[in-house]
Formats: sequence, C-alpha cells, structure tokens
Amino acid sequence: MGGDAGPQVTVPACLSLLGKHAHLRMLLVGHQDALQSAASHERVEIVHTDEVVAMDDPVEVAMRHKKQSSMRLTIEAVKAGRAQAAVSAGNTGALMAIARYVLKTMDGIERPAIAYPMPNVTGGATTVLDLGANVDCTEHHLLQFAVLGSALDMALKARDNPTVGLLNIGSEAIKGNEMIKRAAELLREAGQKSLINYFGNVEGNDIFKGTTDIVVCDGFVGNVTLKASEGLASMVSNVLKEEFSRNALTKLAAIAAMPVLNAFKKRLDHRRHNGAALLGLRGLVFKSHGSADQLAFECALMKAVDASENQLLQKIQTRVQQASVLF
Amino acid sequence: MGGDAGPQVTVPACLSLLGKHAHLRMLLVGHQDALQSAASHERVEIVHTDEVVAMDDPVEVAMRHKKQSSMRLTIEAVKAGRAQAAVSAGNTGALMAIARYVLKTMDGIERPAIAYPMPNVTGGATTVLDLGANVDCTEHHLLQFAVLGSALDMALKARDNPTVGLLNIGSEAIKGNEMIKRAAELLREAGQKSLINYFGNVEGNDIFKGTTDIVVCDGFVGNVTLKASEGLASMVSNVLKEEFSRNALTKLAAIAAMPVLNAFKKRLDHRRHNGAALLGLRGLVFKSHGSADQLAFECALMKAVDASENQLLQKIQTRVQQASVLF
Repeated sequence: MGGDAGPQVTVPACLSLLGKHAHLRMLLVGHQDALQSAASHERVEIVHTDEVVAMDDPVEVAMRHKKQSSMRLTIEAVKAGRAQAAVSAGNTGALMAIARYVLKTMDGIERPAIAYPMPNVTGGATTVLDLGANVDCTEHHLLQFAVLGSALDMALKARDNPTVGLLNIGSEAIKGNEMIKRAAELLREAGQKSLINYFGNVEGNDIFKGTTDIVVCDGFVGNVTLKASEGLASMVSNVLKEEFSRNALTKLAAIAAMPVLNAFKKRLDHRRHNGAALLGLRGLVFKSHGSADQLAFECALMKAVDASENQLLQKIQTRVQQASVLF
Repeated sequence: MGGDAGPQVTVPACLSLLGKHAHLRMLLVGHQDALQSAASHERVEIVHTDEVVAMDDPVEVAMRHKKQSSMRLTIEAVKAGRAQAAVSAGNTGALMAIARYVLKTMDGIERPAIAYPMPNVTGGATTVLDLGANVDCTEHHLLQFAVLGSALDMALKARDNPTVGLLNIGSEAIKGNEMIKRAAELLREAGQKSLINYFGNVEGNDIFKGTTDIVVCDGFVGNVTLKASEGLASMVSNVLKEEFSRNALTKLAAIAAMPVLNAFKKRLDHRRHNGAALLGLRGLVFKSHGSADQLAFECALMKAVDASENQLLQKIQTRVQQASVLF
C-alpha cells in the first residue's frame, strides 16, 4: 500500500516478478480492492486489511494506533514464517520501528541499520550503512554495521570477502572525531582477527569511486550524505534537461545526442539498485524508495528473493557470532 | 606557492586580477625564482622565502618546523596590517592552524570555521559551514557558525538578512541527535531575537535546492558531504565524457551537443565559487581549492578583495557582539 504511487506501482511490479520466477509466491497485504488485479493469480494470496500507515504518520501513530496496518501485518507474516521476507515502499521510520518491535534484533546486535547501495563509477554500487536508523552511534555500533554489511554483500553480491571502509574526513583537519578514532581502532582489530576485511579510512568521494565494497558511518552522516547526493543528482539532471530544451536548436541537439544521453542515464540509473536492507533483525525486511516506479520496485522485490535464497540471515548470524568477541 | 600546480597557476591569476583592478596591490609570498614573472609589476611586492608548507605536511610540521614558510609569512602580513587578506591554495589543515595561532579568534568565537559556497539549482550557491575545521561541535559552535555565515553572505552576496538552515535528517528516523536537537532550540531562540534569520531544519538535498542561503553543520558532516558531492559530480562528468567518446557516432553527437554541454558545464562550474572563507579569526583568510586553475584561483582572490572592501571583519564583529548573549 505504501510509496508515492501505492498499489498502482507495487502490484504490477509483483505480477511482473511472479511472471519471471515460477517458484515465487507472494502475500499481498493491504486493501483487497486496491489489490484486485492480482487476486486471481494462483501464486498470490491477498491478506486484506483496511488500515494503512501513511507516509507522514509519526512513528508513534503507526506503532500504537495502527496495529492492523498492512505494514504491521506484513512484518508479522515474516515473524510467523508465512513469508521469508517483507518489502515495503512505505514510511521508513514506521517500518523500522515496527520491524524492530515485532521481529527483534539478533543476538549480539544492539541496533538494526539501514543499508543502501549507492551507484559508483565502477558500474557497481557501494553498500553504505547506516543511512538514518541510528543517530548517536558508538564504535561498537559501527563494528556491528561492518559485520552486517559484509554479510549483505556476501549474500547479494556473492563477494567472498568484501572490503569495509570507515567514513572519515580528510587531512584538512585533525582526522575524525573521538568516536570515529575509537571505531577505527576497533575495526582494525576486527580486520586483524579476519572478522571483517577492513580497508581503513575512506572519504566521502570514495563512496562514488567504489574504493571499498562497504562504507560504514553513523546514521546522521549517512542520511545527510544520501540526501545530498540525491539532491545533487537531481540538480544535474534538471540542468541538463533545461539546457537541452532551451530552444529549437538545443532540442535538435538533444535528438542527436539521445542514444548517448540514454546510455548515460542507464549507467547512473539508481532504480537498478533500489531496495535498502533493514539489517540486524530476526527476519528479512527491505525498503523500497517511496518514489520507486515499477522497475525500481521490482528490483527491491528481487533483492528480497535473493536475500532469502542466499541465506542472508544465516550468513549474518554466523558473522555476528564470530565477531561478537569484539562487540 | 601552494596548490597542485603552484605558482604556474597562482601567479598568472594574480596578474590577471591586478590588470582588472587598478587600485589593487599584492604581496606575493614565496620563492623569488618562482614568482619572477610578477616581480616587475609596479603593484606587486615579492616577499621572498625558501620555506614552503607541502600539501601533505602534517599540521605539527607546518606549525613548529616551518616558521618561515610562505604560508606563515602571508598570515603574519595580515596580522601586521601589511595585507588586508590572505589567499592560499595550500594545505588546509596547516592554513587553519597557522591562521588560528597567528591571528587568534575574535572575541566571542570559540572556534573558527570553514565556509564554502556549494552551487545550487537557483544558479547561486549555498554557503555551508563548517566544512572540516571542527569535528566535535556543541550547539553553541553551531550558533556561532550561523552568525559567521550570515555576516559572510551579507558582505559577499549583499544579502540583507540571509536565511540559515540547520542540517538535519529526515523523518525516516527520530530527528537529529542530541546535540542537533539542542542546536535547533538555540538557533530558534536566536531567530526569535532577530540575531539570525533562522529557517529551521534542512536536509542534505536542500543544499542543492538552495532552500536557505546558509546551512550550518558540524565539520565532520560538512566535510563528508562536500567530498561526497565532489565525488558524485566527478563520477557524473566522467560517465558523460565516456559515453560521448565511445565511438565515431557518439563523437558526432558530442559535436552537435557541444553548445548545450558547454552551457550545462558553465551553469554547474564550481570554479566560479572557488574560495572557502576561514571565519571567526581576527583577519581575513581565504582558501582556494588545491586543484584550482587560473580562473578558479582568480575567483578566490576576488573574494578576498570583496571581503576586505565590504568590511567582512567588521560585519562579523557586529553580529558576534549582538549574538554573544546566547553564546
């Protein structure tokens, strides 16, 4: 039910993915009228509810007053083992709070984190976490994020031993704040014990260079960086559009350049990477961008499928157990 | 002497600006051989020294072991009143440390800050501070940054009452960390007392939307955001170049699209905005990007001229005195 466009986008994406994977089954949770177009599919089960968490509902409202919301029932289906993973394009704060309350965190994990792949110049994406679930982190939280992110990349990108960078600032100032300095020591120790593949400090630009597979940071810094990047990308795209539609001549140039501009867009298309993982919970939950279109939402669904089939939860649990000596 | 290209860039930029402004005079501080091409100019005085702070010198080395460096002598010329402002393309950490040690901070200012204009979609730029001078900030530091940034925009952009936003994170999580919550209260109070024109919270994307004239944040977040934005911009520009030079056909398209691509580049050209201000000191110091070319370095020089002619120091002092009841 969530996202800017709601079931108009999410239901066709579900049907499209079901068409591609004959073994997939889906529970669609929401108002039956909105899900009507999928009701007759033999591998779809509709779980009807009237209640919906709105995109702007405060977390407290979603938690306390909407206990029959489609979001809540979806997470409960994961908890009950009726579903192997949950996907939502809805209110992130509410999703995280409900998931944490219903599913609980894994042993050894104090705080769940939001991990998102940011496209980099190699053509792949850098997994950045936390993106906003935790705004006052300790060095132990950052180590846990490193472990969670490593397991995610192992499961979804089939990387054997993904590298981890600690987001820090350059030589322009005394490097890092006190927490970051302690985190650097702890991550180094974890690297020496082969609990993670620690690269060392990285800076903001390394996210887009793809210097490491994973970048860990506290949720405040991560959220600001993600939003700033989205803002800059949107500015660049707007200015490019404006310049190409300025007059008849520039419009002609746009036609000539169309195949190149399309290739350019495709390479930087963040929709291919859609789907943030809520990590550290006793169940798989993926968050699609609220503005996702059908292609993007389908990517988020596919990630949930991949995570389930590649035993993400077990991989996380194994890594967490190994690393918990340092937690 | 500083910057990636050194006097090959900085000296021609100085001569170009001198040619445009007949009342300007310049002290060029560095090795006389490197500055030879400017030595005969009637409004140039060469201050010779052998010692140079390298781009990768640790701050301690620059401070303790290079007391005759061109950087140090430049700042001392400001202190002595021989120059109205200093401009350097050199090592930022060293520049900040030397400037702070030699010039001292103004009454009421605990920590100087680095302010940089980031281009936004309006065609102007958003003044963001701090960009990395301070990595463990209190709410009082953020208020001081707000006051410093307001004075800067008044002096350099001729804005009467520039708006200030507090960089925070979205509704995806409990908003802000504890320090940011206290900063929001303090800035609100300063706004109510008309000490600043406080807008409220902004998010990362608002920097590029130009929602407010000024965005304040702690130096860790600011530095990461700046570097990430540079990294993303560089990725976009590389991918665009690669796609247009892929084959004969795309190269033809590039020729057709050249005027549009040039207009696009010009609108997003960060060189026009080059020149970070080191604010809160008892003297004017501007930092050019190390990779600045002649045009960019000339922009940084022009900012120093503007700041001096528009009484930036006095404007800061007045604002700081008014606001100091809340410091």
